Amino acid sequence: MHHVVLREVGLRDGLQSLAQFMPTAAKCAWIAAEHAAGVNEIEVSSFVPPKLLPQFADAEQVVQYALTLPGLTVSALIPNLRGAERGLALGVHKLNYVLSASESHNRNNVRRSTQESVDDFARIVAAARGAANRPILCAGLATSFGCTIEGAVDEDRVRRLAGELAAAGADELVLADTVGYGDPAAVRRVFAAVKQEVGDMVVGAHFHDTRGLGIANVQAALEMGVRHFDASLAGLGGCPFAPGATGNIVTEDTAFLCETLGYDTGIDIERLVRVRPILAANLQDTALLGNLAKAGLPKHFVPARQRAQTEAAQ
Amino acid sequence: MHHVVLREVGLRDGLQSLAQFMPTAAKCAWIAAEHAAGVNEIEVSSFVPPKLLPQFADAEQVVQYALTLPGLTVSALIPNLRGAERGLALGVHKLNYVLSASESHNRNNVRRSTQESVDDFARIVAAARGAANRPILCAGLATSFGCTIEGAVDEDRVRRLAGELAAAGADELVLADTVGYGDPAAVRRVFAAVKQEVGDMVVGAHFHDTRGLGIANVQAALEMGVRHFDASLAGLGGCPFAPGATGNIVTEDTAFLCETLGYDTGIDIERLVRVRPILAANLQDTALLGNLAKAGLPKHFVPARQRAQTEAAQ
Repeated sequence: MHHVVLREVGLRDGLQSLAQFMPTAAKCAWIAAEHAAGVNEIEVSSFVPPKLLPQFADAEQVVQYALTLPGLTVSALIPNLRGAERGLALGVHKLNYVLSASESHNRNNVRRSTQESVDDFARIVAAARGAANRPILCAGLATSFGCTIEGAVDEDRVRRLAGELAAAGADELVLADTVGYGDPAAVRRVFAAVKQEVGDMVVGAHFHDTRGLGIANVQAALEMGVRHFDASLAGLGGCPFAPGATGNIVTEDTAFLCETLGYDTGIDIERLVRVRPILAANLQDTALLGNLAKAGLPKHFVPARQRAQTEAAQ
Repeated sequence: MHHVVLREVGLRDGLQSLAQFMPTAAKCAWIAAEHAAGVNEIEVSSFVPPKLLPQFADAEQVVQYALTLPGLTVSALIPNLRGAERGLALGVHKLNYVLSASESHNRNNVRRSTQESVDDFARIVAAARGAANRPILCAGLATSFGCTIEGAVDEDRVRRLAGELAAAGADELVLADTVGYGDPAAVRRVFAAVKQEVGDMVVGAHFHDTRGLGIANVQAALEMGVRHFDASLAGLGGCPFAPGATGNIVTEDTAFLCETLGYDTGIDIERLVRVRPILAANLQDTALLGNLAKAGLPKHFVPARQRAQTEAAQ
């Protein structure tokens, strides 16, 4: 039986797109409930300047709470060295740095070249090496499957940047379909290229469902050996480049896909679905997406782990 | 380059689930607009008794209109011999008969055993053979991937029933995931079993997106050689067994998947998206689903046919 890690990113990528502030207590309740449902990695906040994104003004409190939950990998986004220092001071388990494979997108997003962003990451690696509790350093490549500014993004460029981030000291990589341009064929090509470049290191996937192919892309990535996926409860988080459009793939639906295909996620899906009311109660006028939650599990559904145990006993 | 046929079933499977009557003129406008967008097969109505489903009281008018559109395969559902006779009288191109692979579901749905339904289909085949314009006879197997009453449905049973329908004279088969229990692994298993049983005949897929796996199931079916899919504009049609839940896969999103994977659908996706306002204007309080329509095509999207032509020219 294979295992798959689903990282909940709704508290970061989801909340980032919302104007209203989710109360710190609600964020903590959300984290606790997902942890209890078996989600073992959560990106709980972002160490961006609160002036830029007031939503994450409580990053320290949220991280400190999350770190009390046993067995949970506490993950947080860092935009730069200053953010990394905040994360290092708290002992966050995993720090996620992001740059865009698309040069134009990176300039628009962080006002520097991709090369400057790679150099910036190298400085973060150096800082983390000196830290008391060295975190896992995860480097994400946004727009790996296309960009709203440039259109297609060259696969060789994605492969080369992945290699540079690995050489700079990344422990893990994530290929992100930031604008939802990816399709299963592109997923296969880009992951094959990157895996050839970086060998056995963990390369995760961050897919959006902007054009309906999110779950099909997960399926294609699973076939390519990808075992780490970002997803968001109730699909929280729109696409900033297409108002009203869908953002992150839905954690519940993704877990359901993985379990039906025999990949153990460790997640109790029914319990995960019961976390949704926390969002409904705290986020007004925000659509809760996801089909599984509306229909419930199939009558004969058996989690992958339980099926494997039954088969082993026979 | 491979070709895929997407059959629009919103006018039948979609409208079937709605209480409000869609005006005949709106149905005809919908059919004309999809035909103009390149959809080359549409299930335009159902020959059920109008007393049971008043939505289809105008079946004759709708079919007669659809038959005037050049190149369109006009398809209609027939619940029994009486329905088939109505279709034969009009010269419908393709008649779709459906029985359930699940014995309990078939009894609930049409109050007879699956064996009686197979025998009924044989009588329809005999009637069609005597008709002036012999239509294509398509037999659908509902609940081929599970049933809300019985849970799992035995694959050998699906295979055997497919063989019986083929032997009775079906020209095409469709395996339907009526309640949205299917997953990509099950899709591969069931299609492999049925194709082994019936050889080279057309075996299409009718998937619902009830639990978020609809498009992933299409992808798995494409890999199994399936080239005929039912889908519904804006995902029209809920799941009758899970109120509020999603029904048919979305035609726009399905076309987008196929085209990105190199399968020519013949459909102009942007033009197809522009058909949605006909639904919005004529169906109050009905959610228009589908992610692609909200986000638009990727900037660098090129239809499969055009890519193949470019490659051939190089």
